[in-house]
Amino acid sequence: MEFSSKLLENAVYEMSQLPGIGKRTALRLVLHLLRQPEAQTHSLSDALTKLRDDVNFCRNCHNISDTEICEICANPKRDKSIVCVVEDVRDVMAIENTSQFKGLYHVLGGKISPMEGIGPQDLNVVSLINKVKEGNIKELIFALSSTMEGDTTNFYIYKQLEGHDVITSTIARGISVGDELEYADEVTLGRSILNRVPFENSIKAD
Amino acid sequence: MEFSSKLLENAVYEMSQLPGIGKRTALRLVLHLLRQPEAQTHSLSDALTKLRDDVNFCRNCHNISDTEICEICANPKRDKSIVCVVEDVRDVMAIENTSQFKGLYHVLGGKISPMEGIGPQDLNVVSLINKVKEGNIKELIFALSSTMEGDTTNFYIYKQLEGHDVITSTIARGISVGDELEYADEVTLGRSILNRVPFENSIKAD
Repeated sequence: MEFSSKLLENAVYEMSQLPGIGKRTALRLVLHLLRQPEAQTHSLSDALTKLRDDVNFCRNCHNISDTEICEICANPKRDKSIVCVVEDVRDVMAIENTSQFKGLYHVLGGKISPMEGIGPQDLNVVSLINKVKEGNIKELIFALSSTMEGDTTNFYIYKQLEGHDVITSTIARGISVGDELEYADEVTLGRSILNRVPFENSIKAD
Repeated sequence: MEFSSKLLENAVYEMSQLPGIGKRTALRLVLHLLRQPEAQTHSLSDALTKLRDDVNFCRNCHNISDTEICEICANPKRDKSIVCVVEDVRDVMAIENTSQFKGLYHVLGGKISPMEGIGPQDLNVVSLINKVKEGNIKELIFALSSTMEGDTTNFYIYKQLEGHDVITSTIARGISVGDELEYADEVTLGRSILNRVPFENSIKAD
């Protein structure tokens, strides 16, 4: 791509550094900003810079929070003895949306992934183990993605916890609500038969 | 979406104002920036703000340019008597890439679109008409998209030019090079038969 302006080229280059945004999309986005009032570009730049400079992670659960301790951890109504281990803030938002979980979270900040060079030392694993060692946690729920990396991370933490008095569980894998059986993959279907639940439970859950 | 941080919510909101970027994508992009060094966010913000504040349009053709007159208009080797009328800077880049055009451009900055409330007064039409009135232009090539809005814009400019001594042409519509006939739409195929060219021309073009 040959640009008629260095400023334009630079803006497009920086925009195209974002994941999933190629040069063409970046150019489209930048030209859109040029057609909008200057204030919009300033708001966007300010919001990004402010977040990046002033971002704070909850001292307890490592979720993004404007306060030292996030709202969830500070809430006296939440059950501090159950901790749900998740990958990032999106998963906290997704689980909070279900209104089905009243415990606390622990945000790892990623998954163990040798392919991407991410090891346990890059994640918030030590603070999780320390929390368990303090002895106030009854149950850890692993709620990572059902991928190779997620399973590896679960297993790594599980091994680190050996000898400690804590229940570990993972969220149920099975057929999604509303899914047709014939389109389900064999592994999921196989697991959902092995891990079948009493029919009464399924009625209660609805 | 419930956010655990106002800063995060704000950044996601501003990002989601860009076209084709929903809240989820915006959150993914913002979280990506948080995982990268601070410098990346600063470069992005600076590049966008600088472009928006200092952007300059060529006084002659209205293309984005860092100089008062863009490189193309300033190039003495270009034929100033042929002007290609395009919608925006992307079209200039696309045509320049073909290396088939040695004239100048005129960037309208959009198309007439009553649906989006864009009329001729929002585009660089007056300066085009004035250029033609000055009498140095022999041919205007309309190279707008082949849509209702593009055709309307072509026709509007064409009507404004009545009585002026200038040749007007549009870029050829037809079957794309490499396309199979059976998948072409009827309108394009019909036009390409009506506007057939001598076989010798097609050999020369290759």
